[in-house]
Amino acid sequence: MLNEIEIFGNQKKGENFIKSVEKKSFLFSVVISYTETCEIPDITIAGKDIESIKYTPAADVEYLHYGFCKCIDEIPMTPDGKPTPALLTKVALESSSIPHVVINAGSKINPLLPYFHTGLKPGKNITQEPALDSESLYKAIDYGRIIGRTLASLTNCLLIGESVPGGTTTALAVLRGLGYDAKVSSSMPNNPIELKNRVVDNALKRLQSNDPLMTVSYLGDPMIPFVAGMLTTASEITNVMLAGGTQMAAVLAFAKKIGFKETNTTIGTTSYIINDESANFVSILKKISDIPILAIDPKLDHSKFDGLKAYSKGFAKEGVGAGGSIIASILKTETDTERFLELTEKEYQRLFISQ
Amino acid sequence: MLNEIEIFGNQKKGENFIKSVEKKSFLFSVVISYTETCEIPDITIAGKDIESIKYTPAADVEYLHYGFCKCIDEIPMTPDGKPTPALLTKVALESSSIPHVVINAGSKINPLLPYFHTGLKPGKNITQEPALDSESLYKAIDYGRIIGRTLASLTNCLLIGESVPGGTTTALAVLRGLGYDAKVSSSMPNNPIELKNRVVDNALKRLQSNDPLMTVSYLGDPMIPFVAGMLTTASEITNVMLAGGTQMAAVLAFAKKIGFKETNTTIGTTSYIINDESANFVSILKKISDIPILAIDPKLDHSKFDGLKAYSKGFAKEGVGAGGSIIASILKTETDTERFLELTEKEYQRLFISQ
Repeated sequence: MLNEIEIFGNQKKGENFIKSVEKKSFLFSVVISYTETCEIPDITIAGKDIESIKYTPAADVEYLHYGFCKCIDEIPMTPDGKPTPALLTKVALESSSIPHVVINAGSKINPLLPYFHTGLKPGKNITQEPALDSESLYKAIDYGRIIGRTLASLTNCLLIGESVPGGTTTALAVLRGLGYDAKVSSSMPNNPIELKNRVVDNALKRLQSNDPLMTVSYLGDPMIPFVAGMLTTASEITNVMLAGGTQMAAVLAFAKKIGFKETNTTIGTTSYIINDESANFVSILKKISDIPILAIDPKLDHSKFDGLKAYSKGFAKEGVGAGGSIIASILKTETDTERFLELTEKEYQRLFISQ
Repeated sequence: MLNEIEIFGNQKKGENFIKSVEKKSFLFSVVISYTETCEIPDITIAGKDIESIKYTPAADVEYLHYGFCKCIDEIPMTPDGKPTPALLTKVALESSSIPHVVINAGSKINPLLPYFHTGLKPGKNITQEPALDSESLYKAIDYGRIIGRTLASLTNCLLIGESVPGGTTTALAVLRGLGYDAKVSSSMPNNPIELKNRVVDNALKRLQSNDPLMTVSYLGDPMIPFVAGMLTTASEITNVMLAGGTQMAAVLAFAKKIGFKETNTTIGTTSYIINDESANFVSILKKISDIPILAIDPKLDHSKFDGLKAYSKGFAKEGVGAGGSIIASILKTETDTERFLELTEKEYQRLFISQ
């Protein structure tokens, strides 16, 4: 039900956004990418073990599409078996018949399904060298602009989600590099703040410039400039919902520098991100831009399955556009989170219990 | 104006199709591919010289998107300088704000723009070996089905065009292999019928089966099963216009074997294809399926430029979905071919005269 969607930031703009997309058409796009920063030990749990992490973006979208993965045997999960948030995304999109497209903007592994090819390479480890050379940076923005324009012309509301292991660290670095005093959520309940801050501090030392392009080139990952490019063109044409947490804050901070239409833009996320006390999501976003933030509580704490309850306890709080997808499914079909929880438990059961 | 669109085949169904898409949303998809059959000397003029032919599909879509090519210096043209029909497609789509997506289903050269990646390889020379192995054939159909479903859910009318040098020869082979007594148009005014028939006869000798999958695998190119797959799923969801001539007849003949929804399907092409006496387009189509054929006369014989008049004289009569795009632009905006000719001359002038 619509009143389950909470609005943070500009209340009035949030209400207007909801009104303009209610019961309309939605298109979910998911940008997969990679940063070698995720290879720093203990920085992410977006994968069963260190070897699996690089498969996570490809496996996420394969699961989203087929209901199983092709490049690995099981769906992506944390080392102790908590499933990828793509599970939430899949249930939300399928239950409301929202179509999706996959964009490969530098994933280390190519998913085994049709996707938008960009030719972008994975980002480098930001503690060691610039994430992207300037040619790749310009290409990411340009190709993002092209795809954003095309997709925006096909829908009343373009959702943009991402899957980038280690991406909260590069997002933190970009936000800090652009002058925001950001703290960052992560997929771990005991967010390794110290480790992340050390990584970011090291990377920031190497940046000798205030230039936003240079900042993203040194500290980002290919997803950040790509999605910023998409937002730039898409927000001129239709409504856009950046579906995610801190990583989308970094996108927004960079997009602010290259221009986008604020009145058509929102961020959609889970209440787990909003309530994360180790991060300061809402206050940072308010500093970046006067856009509304839509949040949904997926009520997974009510689940009978521990693997789903884990989300509400801080594991994989967001990702693969989960929060935005749930919000879109409610906006499109006026379903409620009770029904969503029921379908999510059914899917969880199919994946992990029924064998 | 709507009355400029001629209907062949089932008149009533043609009128219904027009009514159901008039002033609605359109999406143009263009499938680029390759068959090594085009390397047989003199079989195609879809390129300035033998070395250029393989660049034509990539260059066509680059031109469509950017207004210039990136992989080669000039836009694709025949050896004596007649421009690619993509010129007509570009003018039609841009003048009516119809968005487009590029699908790479086996082009030898990858275009320098974002496109749907499928991982399909170019088709082999059908006089020497099977065009596609069975794994590639199944993948072409499967991936076509996936992309068809996605794109169809985003529009009221999905247009599907193609750019495959040498593709009329593989189309002829598939039609003959499936039991239709087809003759085939080509991009040359003196259609090298004898050469094509010899090539097809040689290829047919190697096919020892009536099975449609085997037929396409031996005699086709990756575009044919791919677009048939797209049609299968897309026609269940929305209106589909196959934009092209004989190659789309081959798609239809194969799609008939794997199933599609006839009531949502039409072929859109230029009157140059309908009037081509070396081919028997309308009568073959009637034998394949009771779908309507929509045709448009782009009136290029009225042009002041010989390079445009050439189309009406039989050069590059169709391709890159030119005919269907012009029809869609009329259906969407109720423009007329007089205005279309004006814009086409302006674009021709920009490309070839204003320097």
